[in-house]
Amino acid sequence: MRLLYHFPLDAASRKIRLMLAEKGLACELREERPWERREEFLALNPAGEVPVLVTEAGLALADHRAIAEYLEETHPTPALIGGDPSARAEVRRLAGWFEDKFHREVTAYLVEEKISKRLAGRGHPDSAAVRAGHANIHVHLDYIGWLTDRRAWLAGEQFSLADIAAAAELSAVDYVGDVPWDAHQGARDWYARVKSRPSFRPILGDHIPGAPPPKHYADLDF
Amino acid sequence: MRLLYHFPLDAASRKIRLMLAEKGLACELREERPWERREEFLALNPAGEVPVLVTEAGLALADHRAIAEYLEETHPTPALIGGDPSARAEVRRLAGWFEDKFHREVTAYLVEEKISKRLAGRGHPDSAAVRAGHANIHVHLDYIGWLTDRRAWLAGEQFSLADIAAAAELSAVDYVGDVPWDAHQGARDWYARVKSRPSFRPILGDHIPGAPPPKHYADLDF
Repeated sequence: MRLLYHFPLDAASRKIRLMLAEKGLACELREERPWERREEFLALNPAGEVPVLVTEAGLALADHRAIAEYLEETHPTPALIGGDPSARAEVRRLAGWFEDKFHREVTAYLVEEKISKRLAGRGHPDSAAVRAGHANIHVHLDYIGWLTDRRAWLAGEQFSLADIAAAAELSAVDYVGDVPWDAHQGARDWYARVKSRPSFRPILGDHIPGAPPPKHYADLDF
Repeated sequence: MRLLYHFPLDAASRKIRLMLAEKGLACELREERPWERREEFLALNPAGEVPVLVTEAGLALADHRAIAEYLEETHPTPALIGGDPSARAEVRRLAGWFEDKFHREVTAYLVEEKISKRLAGRGHPDSAAVRAGHANIHVHLDYIGWLTDRRAWLAGEQFSLADIAAAAELSAVDYVGDVPWDAHQGARDWYARVKSRPSFRPILGDHIPGAPPPKHYADLDF
């Protein structure tokens, strides 16, 4: 069976888990703590980053975007990067927005400071970083609301990799309890729809020992 | 004609310029200084980042990866993300290596500190950042040498987007004179081959007023 090296709160790993589930592809999961820099793992991916997907043919694929494109090419149905080239460009633009911009401005400040840093033994969260994450998240939630006022899903009329990438990031931040849902009804309505998809169930069951999620994390009516 | 909003020393902009030239696609260039946050530009790309490609049909495309995939889909010859899905995954993995890892560990420390920061009026380069960039570049140049000992080009036997992405980053660092070519013969040999391609000529002619490149920058025999 295919095998995914992942870390539960890593948004890029969550993106690939969601994509596999949406495409109905069974996959064994193996937890990897990339900061431990295990030699066997570095041999699979010299960049030392999760996720890494080992295919049924034994091919090790690294870089979450390369893995996502590979899964779309080899298992095109259901399409997650669908439509004509311009529609596909819009899916990729918005996936990139959340993977790059949201990740750098929000997830890195909140999830990495509160969870990864502690697990890696690099001390306590930097309160200035946490404040920056809290300040930055609003514009992104507003953007989700603005998009879903105009479209059924983030990139258009179809559920796509853009929704998956955004929900992967937001779900990691939601695990640490830092999404101000009350102030952003549009984003909440969209997230409730994503959260109720069967592909999301394993993500909602994630549990980091010593750092349990808040009660609303797995609640579909949050 | 299609139009590219770019900044000359921005590696992602250089990647798209190189891709357009390799595919023989004419394009008007318009210089954009993204830190000025011009309203008309933000209307094209709310992320506020270059490059943005406006197609002949008037469609504005943002996110350098989305633009690259769009160009490959709409102008597949010559292929720059070619081969079977696993070969394409290797091209994207290595392009990602340079766009993400090299950019974060080297280009951001050197080019952004030395050029963008000054142009944006954000003060002098941080010497600790510059030292970090100088320390980090060696492992990447070694990796290029390691790959090209085993393959004709970075991702395999064909010139690809991986070579373009790597050369786009390195050429920006070379503009500020910070690539230790003498210590890395393998990387130098590879870069000499990329540099001599006709697609590279406009990149070598770039000139930032007040910050000229070192003499060897445009020299094919450096």
